Amino acid sequence: MTDLYKRLDKDNAAVLLVDHQTGLISGLVRDYGVDEFKNNVLALARTAKFFDLPVILTTSFENGPNGPLMQELTDMFPDAPVISRPGQINAWDNEDFVAAVEATGKKQLIIAGVVTDVCVAFPTLSAINAGYDVFVAVDGSGTVSKQVADAALTRMAHGGAELMNWFSIAAELQRDWRNDVEGFGALLAGQLPGYQNVIGSYTGAQKDATK
Amino acid sequence: MTDLYKRLDKDNAAVLLVDHQTGLISGLVRDYGVDEFKNNVLALARTAKFFDLPVILTTSFENGPNGPLMQELTDMFPDAPVISRPGQINAWDNEDFVAAVEATGKKQLIIAGVVTDVCVAFPTLSAINAGYDVFVAVDGSGTVSKQVADAALTRMAHGGAELMNWFSIAAELQRDWRNDVEGFGALLAGQLPGYQNVIGSYTGAQKDATK
Amino acid sequence: MTDLYKRLDKDNAAVLLVDHQTGLISGLVRDYGVDEFKNNVLALARTAKFFDLPVILTTSFENGPNGPLMQELTDMFPDAPVISRPGQINAWDNEDFVAAVEATGKKQLIIAGVVTDVCVAFPTLSAINAGYDVFVAVDGSGTVSKQVADAALTRMAHGGAELMNWFSIAAELQRDWRNDVEGFGALLAGQLPGYQNVIGSYTGAQKDATK
Amino acid sequence: MTDLYKRLDKDNAAVLLVDHQTGLISGLVRDYGVDEFKNNVLALARTAKFFDLPVILTTSFENGPNGPLMQELTDMFPDAPVISRPGQINAWDNEDFVAAVEATGKKQLIIAGVVTDVCVAFPTLSAINAGYDVFVAVDGSGTVSKQVADAALTRMAHGGAELMNWFSIAAELQRDWRNDVEGFGALLAGQLPGYQNVIGSYTGAQKDATK
Amino acid sequence: MTDLYKRLDKDNAAVLLVDHQTGLISGLVRDYGVDEFKNNVLALARTAKFFDLPVILTTSFENGPNGPLMQELTDMFPDAPVISRPGQINAWDNEDFVAAVEATGKKQLIIAGVVTDVCVAFPTLSAINAGYDVFVAVDGSGTVSKQVADAALTRMAHGGAELMNWFSIAAELQRDWRNDVEGFGALLAGQLPGYQNVIGSYTGAQKDATK
Amino acid sequence: MTDLYKRLDKDNAAVLLVDHQTGLISGLVRDYGVDEFKNNVLALARTAKFFDLPVILTTSFENGPNGPLMQELTDMFPDAPVISRPGQINAWDNEDFVAAVEATGKKQLIIAGVVTDVCVAFPTLSAINAGYDVFVAVDGSGTVSKQVADAALTRMAHGGAELMNWFSIAAELQRDWRNDVEGFGALLAGQLPGYQNVIGSYTGAQKDATK
Amino acid sequence: MTDLYKRLDKDNAAVLLVDHQTGLISGLVRDYGVDEFKNNVLALARTAKFFDLPVILTTSFENGPNGPLMQELTDMFPDAPVISRPGQINAWDNEDFVAAVEATGKKQLIIAGVVTDVCVAFPTLSAINAGYDVFVAVDGSGTVSKQVADAALTRMAHGGAELMNWFSIAAELQRDWRNDVEGFGALLAGQLPGYQNVIGSYTGAQKDATK
Amino acid sequence: MTDLYKRLDKDNAAVLLVDHQTGLISGLVRDYGVDEFKNNVLALARTAKFFDLPVILTTSFENGPNGPLMQELTDMFPDAPVISRPGQINAWDNEDFVAAVEATGKKQLIIAGVVTDVCVAFPTLSAINAGYDVFVAVDGSGTVSKQVADAALTRMAHGGAELMNWFSIAAELQRDWRNDVEGFGALLAGQLPGYQNVIGSYTGAQKDATK
Repeated sequence: MTDLYKRLDKDNAAVLLVDHQTGLISGLVRDYGVDEFKNNVLALARTAKFFDLPVILTTSFENGPNGPLMQELTDMFPDAPVISRPGQINAWDNEDFVAAVEATGKKQLIIAGVVTDVCVAFPTLSAINAGYDVFVAVDGSGTVSKQVADAALTRMAHGGAELMNWFSIAAELQRDWRNDVEGFGALLAGQLPGYQNVIGSYTGAQKDATK
Repeated sequence: MTDLYKRLDKDNAAVLLVDHQTGLISGLVRDYGVDEFKNNVLALARTAKFFDLPVILTTSFENGPNGPLMQELTDMFPDAPVISRPGQINAWDNEDFVAAVEATGKKQLIIAGVVTDVCVAFPTLSAINAGYDVFVAVDGSGTVSKQVADAALTRMAHGGAELMNWFSIAAELQRDWRNDVEGFGALLAGQLPGYQNVIGSYTGAQKDATK
Repeated sequence: MTDLYKRLDKDNAAVLLVDHQTGLISGLVRDYGVDEFKNNVLALARTAKFFDLPVILTTSFENGPNGPLMQELTDMFPDAPVISRPGQINAWDNEDFVAAVEATGKKQLIIAGVVTDVCVAFPTLSAINAGYDVFVAVDGSGTVSKQVADAALTRMAHGGAELMNWFSIAAELQRDWRNDVEGFGALLAGQLPGYQNVIGSYTGAQKDATK
Repeated sequence: MTDLYKRLDKDNAAVLLVDHQTGLISGLVRDYGVDEFKNNVLALARTAKFFDLPVILTTSFENGPNGPLMQELTDMFPDAPVISRPGQINAWDNEDFVAAVEATGKKQLIIAGVVTDVCVAFPTLSAINAGYDVFVAVDGSGTVSKQVADAALTRMAHGGAELMNWFSIAAELQRDWRNDVEGFGALLAGQLPGYQNVIGSYTGAQKDATK
Repeated sequence: MTDLYKRLDKDNAAVLLVDHQTGLISGLVRDYGVDEFKNNVLALARTAKFFDLPVILTTSFENGPNGPLMQELTDMFPDAPVISRPGQINAWDNEDFVAAVEATGKKQLIIAGVVTDVCVAFPTLSAINAGYDVFVAVDGSGTVSKQVADAALTRMAHGGAELMNWFSIAAELQRDWRNDVEGFGALLAGQLPGYQNVIGSYTGAQKDATK
Repeated sequence: MTDLYKRLDKDNAAVLLVDHQTGLISGLVRDYGVDEFKNNVLALARTAKFFDLPVILTTSFENGPNGPLMQELTDMFPDAPVISRPGQINAWDNEDFVAAVEATGKKQLIIAGVVTDVCVAFPTLSAINAGYDVFVAVDGSGTVSKQVADAALTRMAHGGAELMNWFSIAAELQRDWRNDVEGFGALLAGQLPGYQNVIGSYTGAQKDATK
Repeated sequence: MTDLYKRLDKDNAAVLLVDHQTGLISGLVRDYGVDEFKNNVLALARTAKFFDLPVILTTSFENGPNGPLMQELTDMFPDAPVISRPGQINAWDNEDFVAAVEATGKKQLIIAGVVTDVCVAFPTLSAINAGYDVFVAVDGSGTVSKQVADAALTRMAHGGAELMNWFSIAAELQRDWRNDVEGFGALLAGQLPGYQNVIGSYTGAQKDATK
Repeated sequence: MTDLYKRLDKDNAAVLLVDHQTGLISGLVRDYGVDEFKNNVLALARTAKFFDLPVILTTSFENGPNGPLMQELTDMFPDAPVISRPGQINAWDNEDFVAAVEATGKKQLIIAGVVTDVCVAFPTLSAINAGYDVFVAVDGSGTVSKQVADAALTRMAHGGAELMNWFSIAAELQRDWRNDVEGFGALLAGQLPGYQNVIGSYTGAQKDATK
């Protein structure tokens, strides 16, 4: 029986953040609210940090209107390779990018980017073709409309990509809360205000009970 | 010819309710209205009860912010196994849970849970991999956004799961109204206010006609 | 200085439930989800019960397609006057209805009904004209579309009605939790699943803390 | 005490249908679904017919891209005045139109048209200024977006117009079902598919009961 | 090369209308507007009539709250078999229904019904299993929510059904306008108010030009 | 009788375009689609041009992240005063701006800007206070969410502003098509693609008829 | 001429944050996204901090399911009065709260809270009645549905409140960027991710130009 | 390993624009805003122009209500074949159309049209069947509702089509910005107002920096 369940493994996964540049985000992303999208991208980045996954950053024309990477990303990963692509739209067409991916030695690629239909879809399909398992972080990826996002996600799903989101990615990498209860809880609380509130209520209730 | 239609059979089905905990629901579920979601979960539970299907409850960290199960569920199934997972996020990673599933002797699993992309998607894909037919109750499962839900449902559909909902599950298990017209009608009326109104009008009209 | 704040007073308020009939609800109400609307109407009714406010029920052509009242309402208020209007669309055009209102001796009227633009708007404007203060329970009132509801609510607000909802009505009648903490908490928990979850989590956390 | 409730009176009301032309509807109306809008306009027209109210039709440049009136309207009111305005955008700027209104002898004007912010708002404000009571049929009026409609309706409400819809207009003109139960029921059934279904169910239930 | 394009053929197609009953529609259908849904169902029925396709009607418990068929359907197809299922929920479980399908001699089945996830999905999957090509008329089928509809349509698409709608079904059956330009134009105009407006404008413009 | 209808007069109106700067639009406007918003702003500007109204442009910190004005605006109005405010957020706090308004000699001000709740609302309320009649072009004004826009528009309406939109402004200024049929038609066609299509169809139909 | 424009003045304004408690937010707020709402509340709080306005915090039953205040608020205002109301639902019914307001000596009150229809609407109307000018921060206030929020905001607007939002409040308090360009820019950038991106692009472009 | 990634190649691609006629667009397209749809269609056309791809235009009954092609398209491609189909609904049923496609010598077909479920879906499935790779430009294709569009796109995706959009098509054809940075940038700026703003800000910032 074939194993139908492609399961993320923290020892075999790398994260590719493609073109989360200030100009592209402000000019083009309209399928997520601005607060929601920023939180999603940072949540994915912090997930990568928490699990100490290799991260590769790449930009398209950063010295132009597309703008620099979100500063939080460069601050968070000072040692990550940043592939400034001189022109290639599909990051996979850039040899340095592919080399950086290969250098990680990982076979599972978590990809997010701006915009979904280009900067995510193209390298996703290329990487699948090259033999990688690709997990798209759909909520860390944005584009011009819900309709365009839906079409791109359908295309990737039919092309063999696994559609996930930062929280399910974090959960699959974690596998078991006991691997680090406090750390994982802090990760979630920091990025999910709803969960943060639940923790606040829990702590409050505990305090009340033991007064 | 392959049988493409995986059809639910009340003698071969079990229901797995994964992490319907108060903290997770209030903190995370935003793709359904609160009234609608509560009604959907109870409708699925009452469907299981009505058909006397084996039910397995499981929780993740119930002695923490995730909170206890919805009390209606524990009240409704006092004898069901409740697997309190000490840490595993994917319920299928918990041996007791899998053993409980196996102990039912059923090969069709109806799964619902919170959140869809983690607590439903992971055991769904694991169970398919283990040879089970899985029927996801999409409207008894909730998560942080419609976009995340859509991605998770697409992932499961491509992985071989059947996407259903509590009403179609109930209808497929019932097969024929004559198996218990009154009981089945009461089940529907109790959980579908729209249907309850139609019954009210029907009864009223009958009374009028025979006055 | 004029008192701009028309404040509900449980000793001076009556509740008018206009035409919550099964046929009208299933055939016409489309601006609220079916689960949400049923819960809202019952919540308003239970609020009236909790504060022991006089309730007046009225129907339009109940022995016809409009259907009987929601059974929960007649069960909940067995002793309330039920004015079966023989034809008047505006309940205020029915002398028995107005007499029933006057018999309560109250000057604050809480009105909800189906449909908002007719069965609520007409008696609301009539009652204001007759010198009453009217508080519309907007979420216990439904109609054919959001656009029609918005127009009707605007009309009523410009005509002098106070736009409220069952929860703010309950809160204003209660004034102070200490008047009956447990009763009021139970009222809220029973009708607000989100609040019920929060209470469940709180109770769970307290138990954990004192184990 | 001022009478705050402007109440429609079938002996004192006229209906003004402004620019329901094929080109304007197909090219500009986007705040209602096409099926819904057609049904709303015809419902308002049939309401006028049912109550035998004077109806005035008017068009703007019908021999041009704006197109002819919806044919159902000209078929339904073969004897109504049709004021083909040679250029005036605000119908009230056309003397023949105002004369036709005056000729009805009515002081309550029900206005609908395309587009809401121009063809409805301008004559509505003019007519109020001229001393008429104006009742806008919001759901028989359409325009380019919900946002533009909302702004125009707010403007008219602040200018003294009553915001209504075809159904509340019909109900207020009817006052009492007994004035013509069958006729009024047929009017509603013909234009409200939801109500038609409820009648169908009622009739079916009656038949069942008396078999 | 396999023929991937399952193409409707008017000489090989039959239409199955499943449970378009008044009670089910008013009580349960919430994923389409009421006007839109009625027009869609009638449009599909008129398409069947126009192409003289065999039509099979079936009902579930019509002598009960589910109510009778929409009267327009029984009026339109006085000679069509109407299979009143005594209890089977999946129409394909009823031998008379399957016999009626077989009696048509057609191998392409166009299916619509209420509700999508039960009355459409079950016979669709059964018929595919039995060797038929199934074309689901998604807009002539309704259910309790968009989310439930989406799940059911995904299930059917993955099970091999072709997702279509009444207009694409009509267009594919027609193949060429010249087969009956006037008849086909009238069919579209009667059911697509937007198209009707375009025709009205065209006719008006022609008249203007030749005056 | 007071004149309730504040009517735009092309000989007494000026247009104030406040802070339509590239950075503010891309960073903040989320209550309109990007295509729709650009078209609305240009439509308002072309309306001003068409009627030869005095236009005043103003910017806030254009030599900073807020960015320069949309280039189409500066190209279209090369001779208009451009008030580069050195710091004042409310344009009315800038003496040069008020002087420029006064220099027009007009008493009716049409205002649009980015963002609605600040750059439009503040000068609108100030100008009303200073005795001007203010007409807000709601669809040429954008902000961070629909909820914020609604609150700001409500505030302005209650403060005495007339809520309009570019099309109703153009129509009111034009008063009568005959003042310039071709020019006005071209203005509409250029900014309303729906109307452009209707004109295209009309012209086509005329050609067909006279072939 | 009356001054219609109630203008916020940083020397005369105080901020009242009512019941931003973890349980109430997670259990009840559904009219804003969770990320958006948290950012809005913090933005309002930071605005108060930036302008050094007196802030009053108040809670309802914090030692119960309603939970403690959002911890960010108590951390940010360690010296602010925190009025723990023993039972009063309307904060204005609590003498300590009113005394704290009076102690600020300010006559302009900026109010936000959870839920809008109760915890905001009641003290807003009470404070207006007591002679204060009230400015509601609509986007820092949340409740169970958009419909309930709309009704409550309409009620408050008709009762004399000014509907604003954190950004327009900050802008009105600031009046002129030059009062503290860097500080104000940092406030906006920190709470408006869209604006943060625009600043990022601007800085990047400047760097490019001067390399 | 099969190449799963069907990648557009500018030397092997042709563009088929099917029935973008004025009557069809104004009468039927309701799943995109009018401004958005026009911009999308022109963007796709300009992309074809920019890459000098062979373009084939086709119409259905252009001398009738369906109307002429959008004039911008005929103006932009004066030398493109325009196949006026005398009756065939599926363009692929027209021999001249297929011949025109074959004459291009290209094996990758980019298809857009009105309406999606007919004029796009039919030739898409036919062309796949005939051995072509088909790339659907989903945002340059419109139809009567989002639900109908979704069904048609699902059908095409399951039938083997690649779901793309004008921007991802342009990006894939371009491959590398360096092939023509200025030309490609101008293409994007002209059709993506959000991107145009970002460029405006960039240019402004550069100017500021070098002053």
